[in-house]
Amino acid sequence: MTFDATILTLYPDMFPGPLGLSLSGDALSRGVWSLEARNIRDHGLGRHKNVDDTPAGGGVGMVLRCDVLAAAIDASVPADDPRPKLLMSPRGKPLTQARVRELAAGPGIVIVCGRFEGVDERVIEGRGLEEVSIGDYVLSGGEMAAMVVLDACVRLLPGVMGKEASGQEESFETNRLEYPHYTRPREWEGRPIPDVLLGGNHATIEKWRRAESDRITRERRPDLLER
Amino acid sequence: MTFDATILTLYPDMFPGPLGLSLSGDALSRGVWSLEARNIRDHGLGRHKNVDDTPAGGGVGMVLRCDVLAAAIDASVPADDPRPKLLMSPRGKPLTQARVRELAAGPGIVIVCGRFEGVDERVIEGRGLEEVSIGDYVLSGGEMAAMVVLDACVRLLPGVMGKEASGQEESFETNRLEYPHYTRPREWEGRPIPDVLLGGNHATIEKWRRAESDRITRERRPDLLER
Repeated sequence: MTFDATILTLYPDMFPGPLGLSLSGDALSRGVWSLEARNIRDHGLGRHKNVDDTPAGGGVGMVLRCDVLAAAIDASVPADDPRPKLLMSPRGKPLTQARVRELAAGPGIVIVCGRFEGVDERVIEGRGLEEVSIGDYVLSGGEMAAMVVLDACVRLLPGVMGKEASGQEESFETNRLEYPHYTRPREWEGRPIPDVLLGGNHATIEKWRRAESDRITRERRPDLLER
Repeated sequence: MTFDATILTLYPDMFPGPLGLSLSGDALSRGVWSLEARNIRDHGLGRHKNVDDTPAGGGVGMVLRCDVLAAAIDASVPADDPRPKLLMSPRGKPLTQARVRELAAGPGIVIVCGRFEGVDERVIEGRGLEEVSIGDYVLSGGEMAAMVVLDACVRLLPGVMGKEASGQEESFETNRLEYPHYTRPREWEGRPIPDVLLGGNHATIEKWRRAESDRITRERRPDLLER
């Protein structure tokens, strides 16, 4: 069973881009997942293949037309396609590791990349798009956000990372940031590895790491402690 | 004055990638910003150019060595370089539009992309790296996160987006998600553009948009209302 990703974008040449290298690139060439980038502009209107128009009611920027985007979706995604359809948007529900895990366990994803000021609301409702945000900042478009979603999903697919659990994932499941890491050399620029980590006492090491996780989370992300 | 970005990564071939197209790509070729990707592995140790080792105190994964990473930083970034040095990490401070705005107003950024389980804590302290997270999920490495930071900064540089303010940015400044957008056609699949937007009454339109912003924020991001 492959994880199949379909991307609807005005910049299909951006894909696979960085997803074609490293972990996700290896997995892509081994057929663990598939990636198809479709150009929304193929469904643009008229001689200039227009895809956007000015916002109803006035305001800055341009809005992606619902009819054009719906045509692009309908041509790429059969009505009975079981994959969730995401729309990358700063207005969306924040992406979490829990949602990534759900997505990675499914048949794949369809991702619509917005551009311009936004997307006509009616296609979001009419095609059941799930608005997802990767964070509280504004990008030039949804393409890089789509890559983030795909990278996060692909590393969880069977056979991609190996059996080793990642401490970072665990950390999001327990709502604690990770403790500090150290490796050789034992001393560097006058900074030693903390003694406790070299003592070989597993219980003491665990206790130290838990305390450090708590301290760092309190300092940087008190919001996580309330979850 | 250019905005100069230096990326330290084990995958320099990922850059510029998607940043070489669209808005940021145009700006890159016009010299509005510069991008240099340096390979951390050039500073690896021994015949195999090793960059990582097992974690002190035990545990899964591998840790990027402090001496290797410091050598890579020192070779690319003079001691008096005024640019902030970011380390992309899920443990970092969450990226916000306000921080993006600060970064974009400065001379540029140095971004260190982590891989493996993490980075030796001592180089974070020793080289004054600012840990930044783009969201609460785990990526295969910092590269895609670095692209997100760069895309967000570059679109704010003078001459990149034009003079038009984006409603999405405004929306983050007021801690409200954006209201729904509509454009032609007037009716689509039985869904009309809301009458209020076609009436031409600016005050009524503003009031409707504000109410919609409030409603959507309450439904999706009640956390923003508390800020």
